[in-house]
Amino acid sequence: MGQASTVLTVPVVIDYASVVVGVLTGALFGCRRRLDVVGVTVAGFLTGFGGGIVRDLLLGAQDVYFMSHPDLIWVSLAICLLTFYFRGIFLDLNKSILLADTLSVALFALAGSSKAFAYGLDPLYVVIMGVITAVGGGALRDSFAGIMPAIFRGSNYYAMACLGGSCAFALLAFAGVNLVPAGFACVFVVLMLRYLSIRFDWRTRE
Amino acid sequence: MGQASTVLTVPVVIDYASVVVGVLTGALFGCRRRLDVVGVTVAGFLTGFGGGIVRDLLLGAQDVYFMSHPDLIWVSLAICLLTFYFRGIFLDLNKSILLADTLSVALFALAGSSKAFAYGLDPLYVVIMGVITAVGGGALRDSFAGIMPAIFRGSNYYAMACLGGSCAFALLAFAGVNLVPAGFACVFVVLMLRYLSIRFDWRTRE
Amino acid sequence: MGQASTVLTVPVVIDYASVVVGVLTGALFGCRRRLDVVGVTVAGFLTGFGGGIVRDLLLGAQDVYFMSHPDLIWVSLAICLLTFYFRGIFLDLNKSILLADTLSVALFALAGSSKAFAYGLDPLYVVIMGVITAVGGGALRDSFAGIMPAIFRGSNYYAMACLGGSCAFALLAFAGVNLVPAGFACVFVVLMLRYLSIRFDWRTRE
Repeated sequence: MGQASTVLTVPVVIDYASVVVGVLTGALFGCRRRLDVVGVTVAGFLTGFGGGIVRDLLLGAQDVYFMSHPDLIWVSLAICLLTFYFRGIFLDLNKSILLADTLSVALFALAGSSKAFAYGLDPLYVVIMGVITAVGGGALRDSFAGIMPAIFRGSNYYAMACLGGSCAFALLAFAGVNLVPAGFACVFVVLMLRYLSIRFDWRTRE
Repeated sequence: MGQASTVLTVPVVIDYASVVVGVLTGALFGCRRRLDVVGVTVAGFLTGFGGGIVRDLLLGAQDVYFMSHPDLIWVSLAICLLTFYFRGIFLDLNKSILLADTLSVALFALAGSSKAFAYGLDPLYVVIMGVITAVGGGALRDSFAGIMPAIFRGSNYYAMACLGGSCAFALLAFAGVNLVPAGFACVFVVLMLRYLSIRFDWRTRE
Repeated sequence: MGQASTVLTVPVVIDYASVVVGVLTGALFGCRRRLDVVGVTVAGFLTGFGGGIVRDLLLGAQDVYFMSHPDLIWVSLAICLLTFYFRGIFLDLNKSILLADTLSVALFALAGSSKAFAYGLDPLYVVIMGVITAVGGGALRDSFAGIMPAIFRGSNYYAMACLGGSCAFALLAFAGVNLVPAGFACVFVVLMLRYLSIRFDWRTRE
């Protein structure tokens, strides 16, 4: 770590964990809406990969994340099928999944903002890409299912928390701070804002 | 055919026929939902070209299919207008169109999986691209119209049939079989699964 | 202007004005649907930038418009926030905004068709890109909010007006007319068709 790195390499296990949790929450959404196995799988994949796909298309990235991680696709597929056929197990875990979901979007925000930073984009776009990657998948899933995305309604902070985290990352990264603490700050700010907004019932106005 | 070809050139008439039928079913969908001529045309185009557009964007293809076939666009436009102004004719043909629709998605599944294979992708992605190309257009159309895509609901096999066909193509293509019989197998499996699922009322569970 | 230019450089103030009005109408849409500040901002951005994003992805453009205009993003952001917090002002302006909206889509139609022309596309695609850029953003916004896009329903000319304007541009541009008058013709035709359709209550049939 003697030199400043311009690309933050998130350990693969963390990267994968965030996608896996996204896929899981998406598949559970599909089960609650009584989709069939195809619908549950698509809902899972849209949630886990949708934000990254939009980010990569906007970046004009040659390596769309979804297209270059076959092993992660297999894992995601397995999660969707497990969720579909053994949904009872997961629906009981609702509370832990909510926690995992917040961690997942925090890591998505980091994945988005750090990739945009690696592409040499302006701070503004670094923040935007962080937010799009974090909440884009869930919004696409909702929209694809024909309902108004939940994040656009007044609620406890969710997109706002991701906005805060992405701003924290951009601020530190452009201030020349090493990307590892900047990444931790991003995740920490998302979790903290989400927690505080639930704890003190801060809500976005409509 | 002495040597294995890595790119399957589907005869252009077949390729066009699949798009044309897709456009027709989409335009009829638009008529049934009482859209105006703009809506009917967009519904037709989304159904006929939407799956291919998503596939090409994900592949990072330089030649998006929709953008490189002006003559096919003219034909599709004519079909949308004909359907809109003479819908009576087509609505009577409902049954033959259902048959044609199955053939159309079978050919879409082939177009998707063979293009992914030509790009040298993993078997997994070959199958995924086959399914996305086959059912993506119809799903986009439904979603764009603000309704839950029909294929995500429990029903007779549709996406599942396309999955079967794409798997058959990937299996044979990666086993080194010539792409022409592999292509026939793909189409045959889709038609057969669709037929059997209706004949014996196999349905996906919700 | 001694020589024919193949790229029409729309004065930046006009270009920006069209996006700004698009963002404003989108943000007002979000306020009327009672979205929170995130939803209002996304609705604004989708309306102002959505059509151009779809166009640029289809063109395979290296410079997606949305990604290369940070100053415009700041302005758009400010508009969304102003609209959200001081919506009373804007909702009173409803009539002037309707007028501005028509001017905005007219300029979008011009931006889309002239960019496609600069890419050397066929007349057919020049027209299509004009229409997609003009009405794509609003359609995406409606669809994202889970409702059938309004432009697909029978109504006074809107997409049809943009079609007329894009055709006028393509006709003149391919006839070798200087692009500046061609651009004026495009905008004029859109405004005129829209005005006439309201004045004489021309409506698209369902």
